[in-house]
Amino acid sequence: MMTIVPAHLNEANDKLVLLDQTLLPVEEKFLELDKVEDIWEAIKKLRVRGAPAIGVAAGFGIYLAVKDFETDNFNEFEAFFLKNKKYLASSRPTAVNLFWALDRMTYRLQVEQNKSIKEIKEALLEESQKILVEDQAMGRKIGEYGLSLLQPGMGLLTHCNAGGLATSGFGTALAPMYLGHSKKYDFKVFADETRPLLQGSRLTTWELDQAGIDVTVITDNMASMVMKEGKIDAVLVGCDRVAANGDTANKIGTSGVAILAKEYGIPMYVLGPTSTIDLNTPTGNEIEIELREPEEIGNGFGRRTAPESVKAYNPAFDVTDAKYITAIITEKGVLYPPFTESIKKIFE
Amino acid sequence: MMTIVPAHLNEANDKLVLLDQTLLPVEEKFLELDKVEDIWEAIKKLRVRGAPAIGVAAGFGIYLAVKDFETDNFNEFEAFFLKNKKYLASSRPTAVNLFWALDRMTYRLQVEQNKSIKEIKEALLEESQKILVEDQAMGRKIGEYGLSLLQPGMGLLTHCNAGGLATSGFGTALAPMYLGHSKKYDFKVFADETRPLLQGSRLTTWELDQAGIDVTVITDNMASMVMKEGKIDAVLVGCDRVAANGDTANKIGTSGVAILAKEYGIPMYVLGPTSTIDLNTPTGNEIEIELREPEEIGNGFGRRTAPESVKAYNPAFDVTDAKYITAIITEKGVLYPPFTESIKKIFE
Repeated sequence: MMTIVPAHLNEANDKLVLLDQTLLPVEEKFLELDKVEDIWEAIKKLRVRGAPAIGVAAGFGIYLAVKDFETDNFNEFEAFFLKNKKYLASSRPTAVNLFWALDRMTYRLQVEQNKSIKEIKEALLEESQKILVEDQAMGRKIGEYGLSLLQPGMGLLTHCNAGGLATSGFGTALAPMYLGHSKKYDFKVFADETRPLLQGSRLTTWELDQAGIDVTVITDNMASMVMKEGKIDAVLVGCDRVAANGDTANKIGTSGVAILAKEYGIPMYVLGPTSTIDLNTPTGNEIEIELREPEEIGNGFGRRTAPESVKAYNPAFDVTDAKYITAIITEKGVLYPPFTESIKKIFE
Repeated sequence: MMTIVPAHLNEANDKLVLLDQTLLPVEEKFLELDKVEDIWEAIKKLRVRGAPAIGVAAGFGIYLAVKDFETDNFNEFEAFFLKNKKYLASSRPTAVNLFWALDRMTYRLQVEQNKSIKEIKEALLEESQKILVEDQAMGRKIGEYGLSLLQPGMGLLTHCNAGGLATSGFGTALAPMYLGHSKKYDFKVFADETRPLLQGSRLTTWELDQAGIDVTVITDNMASMVMKEGKIDAVLVGCDRVAANGDTANKIGTSGVAILAKEYGIPMYVLGPTSTIDLNTPTGNEIEIELREPEEIGNGFGRRTAPESVKAYNPAFDVTDAKYITAIITEKGVLYPPFTESIKKIFE
C-alpha cells in the first residue's frame, strides 16, 4: 500500500527529505535539506504543513542542526542546541506541534546529559525517528477504528486535507480510506476543494489519486447536491481542536458540511489524535478563530477575483457544534455522544 | 440612486452599449457595438450575461441588424430580419430569454407588416426599448415587495449574481438592497464568491460597491459561520426556474445556503419574475441540471488547482426543496407556502 511521507530523514546522506507542498499539484518535487536555515524556510513557507508533519520536520531539523557541532562539553553543546531550537521555533509561531516536538527533543537531550556527546547525538536521532514512527502508528490506529464504521463501496466526502501530507503516512480523516483501499473497499471519495487555499483540490485529491483511490473534486458549494443525489454515505473530516464537550474547530466550512450531513441523514465523523482534544477548553465558544488576510479571497490565484475596494471576511476555521457530530474517531477508540462523558472517560 | 444598465441603446449614434462583464472586476469597459457579428460575439462570450440582460441585448441587436437595410418590400425586409434573428439566436442555444426577446420582436414585425418599412423600423426600436423598460419596472416591483419584508440595519446574504448586471437596473435578489439603500436602510451585505465562476465576488460585490452599499465577500463555505455569528438576518437569492410546487433551481450552492438558513432560523427568500415560474414543471425532480466542464473547477483561475488526472463534478445549478424556502418574491407579490396553492393563485 502506498502512503505519503511528507518529511523523513535520508540516513544515507543525513538529509531531511521534504515534499514541497507549495508546488502541488503541478509539480512533485522532493527537497533534500541539511542546513537549519533551509529547514526554517521550508516550515515558514508551508513547503511542509499540517501540525504533525511540522513536528516531524522540526524533530529532524534540530537533530541536523546540532549533529556536526564538535565539542566534548555538554553545556556548550546544550547552548548550541537551545540557540537552534529557538531559531526553528520562530518559523511558525502558532504551530503547537512545532513546539511540542522541539520540547520533546530538548527533554531527551536533558535525559542523556551524562552520556558522551556522540551518544547524545545518537539519542537525538533516535528520538526524531520515534516522533515519525509514533505519528504513523497513530494514523494507522485511527484508520482501523474509522474503517470499522464503514462498508465497501461507500461514497465518502471529506473537506480540506487531513491526510498523509498533513501527518505521516495515513493521516487522520483519510486514514480509513487508505486502509480500506488496501482491503479493496472501493470507496468513491468526493473532496471539497476547500477555498480559499484549496487544500482539498491541491493536496487531498493529489494524494488519494497517487494511491489509486477513486476521487472526484467538487467546489465547496456542491456538497449539498452530492448528498441529495445519494452519492455520500459518510463524511470524514480532521480537526484542529476538540473542546471537552465535543465542539470541534476545523477548517472553515466544516460546520456547514456537518449541518448538511445531519439534514440528509448522513453520519458525520471527526477523526484526530487524542492530543487534539483539549480538556481545558470547555466548549467551542472558548476557541479563538484565526482571521487571515482578505487578499486570500479577493486575489487568491494571482488574479483579482473581487474589486480591491471590497472587504473580505476570512476566518481560517469554524466550530462545528457537537450536536452535528456522529462520532469522534481517535487512536484510542471511537467516542460517541454525549461527548462530555465519552471524552472524560478516554482520558481516565 | 445609481443602478447598473448592462445593455442599452445609445440613440445619439445608434450603438448598443454593453458593459463587458468578462473584464470585471479588474476593468470597467463599455463596448459600443453596431455590427450584428459583434453583438453575436458579445452574447456568445458572456460579455453580456444573465437571462433578462441577454434578452435586452438581443432586442436591440436585431433592431440594429435590420435598421439600415434598404427596401420597400416587406417580404424582402422580413426575410432579412429572420436571417439575422436566426443568426443571433445561435449565439447561446440554451438561453430562453434570448429566444423570447427575438420572438417578441418578430411578433411586433408581423403586427406592423402593413406599415411602411420606415414605420416598421421605428416600431422595432420602440419594442426593443420596451423590453428594457419593462425589465427595469419588473425589478423595481420585486425590490418593493422584497423591501417590505426587511428592516433597516439588517445583515443580508446573497449567492451568485442576480443583480443589475444580470437584468437591467435593479435585478431581482439585489433589488431590495438597491431600493433599501436609497431609503438609507444601511444593510450589511455578505456575498458568497460563488465558485466555480465567481459571479458573487466578480459581479455582485462590484455592482453593490459601485452603488455605495456595504458589501463583504466570503468564500461559499463561510456561510455557516457568518450565520452562526448572527451577521445574517435574511438570505436573498435569484432563481433560474421555479417548479409548480415551489422547488427552485438556482446557481449551484443555493440549496446548501437554504438548509443552513433553516437550521439557523434565518428567512430564505427567492426573488424572480413570474416568468421564471414554470407551471409545466410539477416539482424540482423534473428540472434537468446542466453539467459543465471539469476544467472550470480544476483549472479555473488560469492555474491548475487539481491534478489533471483527477475527476471533477461540475453541476451548474442545484434544486432547493420548497420546504427550505420562506417566500418567493415576484413582481406580482409575495408568495408563501404552501407554494402549490399560492403559485396557482397568482396565475389565475
